[in-house]
Amino acid sequence: VFCQGLKALSAVTSGSARLHNSTQEAFRIEYDTFGELKVPSDKYYGAQTVRSTMNFKIGGVSERMPVQVIRAFGILKRAAAEVNQDYGLDPKIANAIVKAANEVAEGKLNDHFPLVVWQTGSGTQTNMNVNEVISNRAIEIMGGKLGSKTPVHPNDHVNKSQSSNDTFPTAMHIAAAQEVNEVLLPGLKKLQNALEAKSKEFSQIIKIGRTHTQDAVPLTLGQEFSGYVQQIKYGVARIESTMPRVYQLAAGGTAVGTGLNTRIGFAEKVAAKVAELTGLPFVTAPNKFEALAAHDALVELSGAMNTVACSLMKIANDIRFLGSGPRSGLGELILPENEPGSSIMPGKVNPTQCEAVTMVAAQVMGNHVAVTVGGSNGHFELNVFKPMMIKNVLNSARLLGDVCSSFTDNCVVGIQANMDRINKLMSESLMLVTALNPHIGYDKAAKIAKTAHKEGTTLKEAAIKLGFLTSEQFDQWVKPKDMLGPQ
Amino acid sequence: VFCQGLKALSAVTSGSARLHNSTQEAFRIEYDTFGELKVPSDKYYGAQTVRSTMNFKIGGVSERMPVQVIRAFGILKRAAAEVNQDYGLDPKIANAIVKAANEVAEGKLNDHFPLVVWQTGSGTQTNMNVNEVISNRAIEIMGGKLGSKTPVHPNDHVNKSQSSNDTFPTAMHIAAAQEVNEVLLPGLKKLQNALEAKSKEFSQIIKIGRTHTQDAVPLTLGQEFSGYVQQIKYGVARIESTMPRVYQLAAGGTAVGTGLNTRIGFAEKVAAKVAELTGLPFVTAPNKFEALAAHDALVELSGAMNTVACSLMKIANDIRFLGSGPRSGLGELILPENEPGSSIMPGKVNPTQCEAVTMVAAQVMGNHVAVTVGGSNGHFELNVFKPMMIKNVLNSARLLGDVCSSFTDNCVVGIQANMDRINKLMSESLMLVTALNPHIGYDKAAKIAKTAHKEGTTLKEAAIKLGFLTSEQFDQWVKPKDMLGPQ
Amino acid sequence: VFCQGLKALSAVTSGSARLHNSTQEAFRIEYDTFGELKVPSDKYYGAQTVRSTMNFKIGGVSERMPVQVIRAFGILKRAAAEVNQDYGLDPKIANAIVKAANEVAEGKLNDHFPLVVWQTGSGTQTNMNVNEVISNRAIEIMGGKLGSKTPVHPNDHVNKSQSSNDTFPTAMHIAAAQEVNEVLLPGLKKLQNALEAKSKEFSQIIKIGRTHTQDAVPLTLGQEFSGYVQQIKYGVARIESTMPRVYQLAAGGTAVGTGLNTRIGFAEKVAAKVAELTGLPFVTAPNKFEALAAHDALVELSGAMNTVACSLMKIANDIRFLGSGPRSGLGELILPENEPGSSIMPGKVNPTQCEAVTMVAAQVMGNHVAVTVGGSNGHFELNVFKPMMIKNVLNSARLLGDVCSSFTDNCVVGIQANMDRINKLMSESLMLVTALNPHIGYDKAAKIAKTAHKEGTTLKEAAIKLGFLTSEQFDQWVKPKDMLGPQ
Amino acid sequence: VFCQGLKALSAVTSGSARLHNSTQEAFRIEYDTFGELKVPSDKYYGAQTVRSTMNFKIGGVSERMPVQVIRAFGILKRAAAEVNQDYGLDPKIANAIVKAANEVAEGKLNDHFPLVVWQTGSGTQTNMNVNEVISNRAIEIMGGKLGSKTPVHPNDHVNKSQSSNDTFPTAMHIAAAQEVNEVLLPGLKKLQNALEAKSKEFSQIIKIGRTHTQDAVPLTLGQEFSGYVQQIKYGVARIESTMPRVYQLAAGGTAVGTGLNTRIGFAEKVAAKVAELTGLPFVTAPNKFEALAAHDALVELSGAMNTVACSLMKIANDIRFLGSGPRSGLGELILPENEPGSSIMPGKVNPTQCEAVTMVAAQVMGNHVAVTVGGSNGHFELNVFKPMMIKNVLNSARLLGDVCSSFTDNCVVGIQANMDRINKLMSESLMLVTALNPHIGYDKAAKIAKTAHKEGTTLKEAAIKLGFLTSEQFDQWVKPKDMLGPQ
Repeated sequence: VFCQGLKALSAVTSGSARLHNSTQEAFRIEYDTFGELKVPSDKYYGAQTVRSTMNFKIGGVSERMPVQVIRAFGILKRAAAEVNQDYGLDPKIANAIVKAANEVAEGKLNDHFPLVVWQTGSGTQTNMNVNEVISNRAIEIMGGKLGSKTPVHPNDHVNKSQSSNDTFPTAMHIAAAQEVNEVLLPGLKKLQNALEAKSKEFSQIIKIGRTHTQDAVPLTLGQEFSGYVQQIKYGVARIESTMPRVYQLAAGGTAVGTGLNTRIGFAEKVAAKVAELTGLPFVTAPNKFEALAAHDALVELSGAMNTVACSLMKIANDIRFLGSGPRSGLGELILPENEPGSSIMPGKVNPTQCEAVTMVAAQVMGNHVAVTVGGSNGHFELNVFKPMMIKNVLNSARLLGDVCSSFTDNCVVGIQANMDRINKLMSESLMLVTALNPHIGYDKAAKIAKTAHKEGTTLKEAAIKLGFLTSEQFDQWVKPKDMLGPQ
Repeated sequence: VFCQGLKALSAVTSGSARLHNSTQEAFRIEYDTFGELKVPSDKYYGAQTVRSTMNFKIGGVSERMPVQVIRAFGILKRAAAEVNQDYGLDPKIANAIVKAANEVAEGKLNDHFPLVVWQTGSGTQTNMNVNEVISNRAIEIMGGKLGSKTPVHPNDHVNKSQSSNDTFPTAMHIAAAQEVNEVLLPGLKKLQNALEAKSKEFSQIIKIGRTHTQDAVPLTLGQEFSGYVQQIKYGVARIESTMPRVYQLAAGGTAVGTGLNTRIGFAEKVAAKVAELTGLPFVTAPNKFEALAAHDALVELSGAMNTVACSLMKIANDIRFLGSGPRSGLGELILPENEPGSSIMPGKVNPTQCEAVTMVAAQVMGNHVAVTVGGSNGHFELNVFKPMMIKNVLNSARLLGDVCSSFTDNCVVGIQANMDRINKLMSESLMLVTALNPHIGYDKAAKIAKTAHKEGTTLKEAAIKLGFLTSEQFDQWVKPKDMLGPQ
Repeated sequence: VFCQGLKALSAVTSGSARLHNSTQEAFRIEYDTFGELKVPSDKYYGAQTVRSTMNFKIGGVSERMPVQVIRAFGILKRAAAEVNQDYGLDPKIANAIVKAANEVAEGKLNDHFPLVVWQTGSGTQTNMNVNEVISNRAIEIMGGKLGSKTPVHPNDHVNKSQSSNDTFPTAMHIAAAQEVNEVLLPGLKKLQNALEAKSKEFSQIIKIGRTHTQDAVPLTLGQEFSGYVQQIKYGVARIESTMPRVYQLAAGGTAVGTGLNTRIGFAEKVAAKVAELTGLPFVTAPNKFEALAAHDALVELSGAMNTVACSLMKIANDIRFLGSGPRSGLGELILPENEPGSSIMPGKVNPTQCEAVTMVAAQVMGNHVAVTVGGSNGHFELNVFKPMMIKNVLNSARLLGDVCSSFTDNCVVGIQANMDRINKLMSESLMLVTALNPHIGYDKAAKIAKTAHKEGTTLKEAAIKLGFLTSEQFDQWVKPKDMLGPQ
Repeated sequence: VFCQGLKALSAVTSGSARLHNSTQEAFRIEYDTFGELKVPSDKYYGAQTVRSTMNFKIGGVSERMPVQVIRAFGILKRAAAEVNQDYGLDPKIANAIVKAANEVAEGKLNDHFPLVVWQTGSGTQTNMNVNEVISNRAIEIMGGKLGSKTPVHPNDHVNKSQSSNDTFPTAMHIAAAQEVNEVLLPGLKKLQNALEAKSKEFSQIIKIGRTHTQDAVPLTLGQEFSGYVQQIKYGVARIESTMPRVYQLAAGGTAVGTGLNTRIGFAEKVAAKVAELTGLPFVTAPNKFEALAAHDALVELSGAMNTVACSLMKIANDIRFLGSGPRSGLGELILPENEPGSSIMPGKVNPTQCEAVTMVAAQVMGNHVAVTVGGSNGHFELNVFKPMMIKNVLNSARLLGDVCSSFTDNCVVGIQANMDRINKLMSESLMLVTALNPHIGYDKAAKIAKTAHKEGTTLKEAAIKLGFLTSEQFDQWVKPKDMLGPQ
């Protein structure tokens, strides 16, 4: 995903060179069913795109439709053109569409997609933006005149057998599945591996446990980290368990799910083609009515990411508290020092990677509520919160994946155990008294702990003073290394 | 809040029959490690329970620990006693515990659990409440003196090989799994079946589709309902896909996950015993550190229920809008009339079941955020939002299950199609024009629709007037029943 | 609010004594516009209430309409009857209604309100439940026959000039305003006072500050607590700033907000009467359409409570971390020991009040989302998420108020500063180096801190070793007590 | 991710004109306390900024710190420099800082702020980015060498008397207050005015009311819109009521709230200066500890925006349903046609502005949860969710303001009443029967409505047939225009 900027840059440069007359005239005239509009002559998009920019001045450039959706549309339009050719679309037209769609899929034409998320809730205008760009680019390829809609018509050819209502959700699923596979899951697995390595590295370090933030019985630092490993491992499983429904594509449902104006087999062939192009196991959705009218699959995926966010919040919180200090905190972990921590306090180092993680976690929880509200408010044959929903799903996937990777590289792999501190805290703990329960009972053990706490002595001193056991018995029964598992 | 008083009273009446001396003395003295306390003589609970009622006056009776948790504890304590006997616990004591625990599991001692959810975040006080009730009831069974802690000690015997930190999450998972299997899934499946029957019943009824709430191309009413069926069917799959992790039990982890003070094999045997007692496939959690310190499995389950809530909100909204009227709404569905709808408007009937469904959906979304916030805020070896989390998970499961059942019985099964209305709206629709796209192209078709709309005529009239096609062609190409699928 | 169960119990006892023939016949026959129904002969409610219990088997007893709503209805019905008398209602009937309504307002008839929250979204069935109970009780007072609807008709007399659509939101606002004034604000102010006292008590204790959970420059413990005081003080202001809109009553709007079937002046007089009865500044809502169709005022109040929840989460988290230990935590505060903390770890004491606070905070955040979703989904002239919304608002208000009070009594007032620990941590801190910035610049100060950290020495030692300043200069410039404010 | 290349390119082009030697050398060397780093020679930022870009590769360009925060920092740094001059900062240095800061405030140096939101949670790196850019630009102005930190040091001069911990929250409040005043409130007021004009325009149009989505008693279309007006009007009040606390600035608190390394009066003077520069009533926060450690004021503001989102969701939903059709919906409103609505259904027009509104509403609800989670998780002297919180607050303010403006211009002002449809629906309504309640009672009125509904007749026909009243009485009592208010 990184470095797309550079690629895009060269794409734009080469792309605009291919446009007619851009220096001679600033605008060309295009029309939609509402009338004529001026279109910048160096852009492939047409009248409907321009009209959308006029009607939806909401949020500005940072609120543009995510580029992942645009690229997914490129894949879909290419697949549809190839299948349409099977059903009789003129091969010359089909080929030109495939070529143009490919450029969209590769991100070469990103600059031609100016629309924001906050448009029609079906994403129709982005679908038309795609249709217009591909038709004009295909027209150009075939030597025609931009904006003429001939020989390649945005609706009749590029959108053939399609509706915004099935293409946009198809692009949503393609984009979400790609982001999950390319960013989210690799990030999670990278973090899981790094935590697992630390868990092994720390397997012999006995430390005090903490429950209710208070001193408790000991465990190994490796055991503590093994809980984090398990959380992330299950996080991967949670994400993966939602994917079968994300891999189902709405394409072929057209306007309301019936598949009007498509051909029998179209839906299945398009899904197969998309699967081939992406290397992901897409299939056609078994029920297109559900696939257009609801986006439960994305609510579900978002819910899985929400669970992962909870896991990450917990892990990052633990690590920053265990690494707190350097002198007045818990200080059991030494975290990598990555940058100056304060503009006023010289020499301060902060657990900044943990902070990025927890901020991302909060964002993902918020995104999830937005997705939930949108997902619950579909009406009849169409949910019209589509652009908002996919924006949030993609944002969560990207941020989680990226932050897992950043957290791993810049924090987890460099974590060191502060042995002196760990040993000191462990040996002073009053909760080692728990080992006495089977020998002298809970009530007497409690008296020992309370006495030691009150008088500031060791457990052993208190135990002997209270006459509950001998020095030898204490040494025999209270051994931290015997407290790390069942017997 | 109300009525619990009454229940408590009758409970007291029947319950106290089994208690010694309840008429002679109002209180007995019990003690915990903090000192002595007066305990009502007609209650089995002890000092720690009383102390909690004094320290946590929060929310009152309606905020008590859900009875499902109490009953789950009964199952767990019985299982633990049986396994402890295998490891050497005096069979007489074990038997008495098993008997008392069984009464808890059967809900016979519910009145002896007065504690609220808003207590310690580990649920320690409820675990001790359970330990106290079982130990006193077991003491009674064995002929001992209530509050004497002998021959059955709440900690040393009832809680043997256990900690609140592993028993409470175990009870959480047992309670959640039971509520899911006994209420939620049956409710969902019942609704799925009812919707499926309606989908079949309505399979030949062609009606107008609506996208963006606006008229669109036709589909059958059966197709429309098939989308709802798919949503609920996937809802069942979503819930079920989270259960493997809910079936994992923390028991055996004791205080911090190491299993201190348990015996090798204890964890596995307890899980097997719980599985046997409940008929559900519980296993011991592979990593106890995760099982105590995080409750991701419940966040995940809550997320699945949140997705189901979205589905239900959508379906119930559709049904009430399709049934809106009787004269000024969409009026395509006739919903069962269940009760007078208005205290001021005579004869008014309202889609009240849909309203209950949508209110429940909103509640589940809210509960999910509470679960998420709690789930993300564990620290070190323990998450201390346990009682709050399980309260919300159980509430969501119960409400969803119940409302699905109510909605099915009192609404879905009685839904009728208003054929006159459906036919009238369908025949007038302008969007049938879409069928002309493959014949005359999108732009001409648009002109026909716009003309008919503007002039208030039929599509056919407009089409002929514009000279785009003949009357015969129109009749041949625009057939709603040919618009229900690909060709 | 506490002990409502008991109160209710006595109410039932005395109440049922007044009912005819309850021992002779189990049921009487009542009817609504849908037909006849059997009504328990010892209950004042009628057919519509019974019908609701049959149609809405959702959630069970713990999901009953909050008693605060029922009592608010009693106040409203009394006020309406008195105003209706001004407009011509037979004084005998009015008087009987007033008397019966008063019993409802006082909670004496709570047992006669069996309906759950999950009913019609307008609360119509609860309004009818109230109308039925009051009419039957008034009939009884006047010597008539229960269920005869004469001489007091539930709709024509008790509900005169009213609709569920304006009475239910009126009761919502009355109940919310009372809970805020009786529980929430007193709880917050109590906590504010306690924190303020602690802030003063701790005003001379200099301690290390912590930012990013890491050591930072010093402040006084009193200053630290002053931040908490400010948060709660603003919390009170936040709640209060929303109340003007909560004090606006929908009564007089009837079915759709127009006030059909009321008299000019009715709305204003009812609001004035409610104000008189409650001692709270209720007024009639300036726009009844908004007051029925939206519940923005409750979303707003819930939002203020959500902010308070954030404040409490922060404060309780701080206090438990500052009080963590006893030997392996930060240990700067000594929290009151209220109960045994562990069923397995003898002598353990936990910050349980903090845990109740943070669990309540999470719940309030969840409730807020439920209220938000409900509040956003009204349609046309009516929002039909009313019962769900008020349930959550009342729950948040009650829990927040109660937990503030519990937290104050059982934790805050008993907090002690651990002077030894505080002094030790403060003196060892490396961040005192910040005081050198104005003298030697940020970069040199950073070198001192880093050197001391690396070599495990004091700042002074490192500073002198690096040759940046003399021992005298260090002592003169680095004085914690000079670091507590601007100069 | 996309566009970074492009932006960077254009930035380079315009920016480098002012920078030394950009053609000769690609990089210069700068250092921070961690060591040396290569800095692009055409950028004003320095080592710490570069280091952050290396450590936080999270989310890419679209996740950059909002430009509003950067500009607010420009205002703050200018104010601080001017006040520092009063306290002795060299006027030449102060002047250069003021000049450079002004360029930041005016957005002229936006390209020099590459950092993302997902960095340290205190925003330290952005504060340092600002310090570096201003110091280097000031150095340039004074003829010095970029990166030399002389004569203008980023910490010692630009950050003088400041810490990230007080400057970042100050910039947050400045940015939020400006966005509220410049975008959100103007948008809301514009919408309020447009709705108010429509309410007046429609004041004489009597239409059917709808409750529970079902037919109810009539009201005027103007009354219906007056409810919307009230919601937005209160929305403005809600936002404004939160602003007093947003106008409080943390500046002067420095690292932990004590004001270490500032001078007495500094805080007040800076706030006054910011107020002067912005024209907004900023004051210094009365308690700096609260102002650094919590961001309750932003949670509160977000809560107010969440309430506004609920209002907008309701209004937009109503308008799209009332405008549904053209032939099979409610059809009472005619919404402006702004663009082609479908890529497959010719002639379709959709309520796209309503969809943008409802999508924004969902986003704001989600943003609010992110803000809430962040706001609740501060620790000790510092909340470290700052960048995430302000990003979401600004996003909500901008989207709400923009969408209100777009909705007004492109939908509300053009809404027309469909008189034929409105009259037809109104005259057919059965709920006009409610007017008979005072004359013949609720029960008889109900029979009339049910009979008419069952038999498909008019109310009048049913009433006469049932013999409850005469034709004359019906005409006299059932007059829609008499049903619009109290009598």
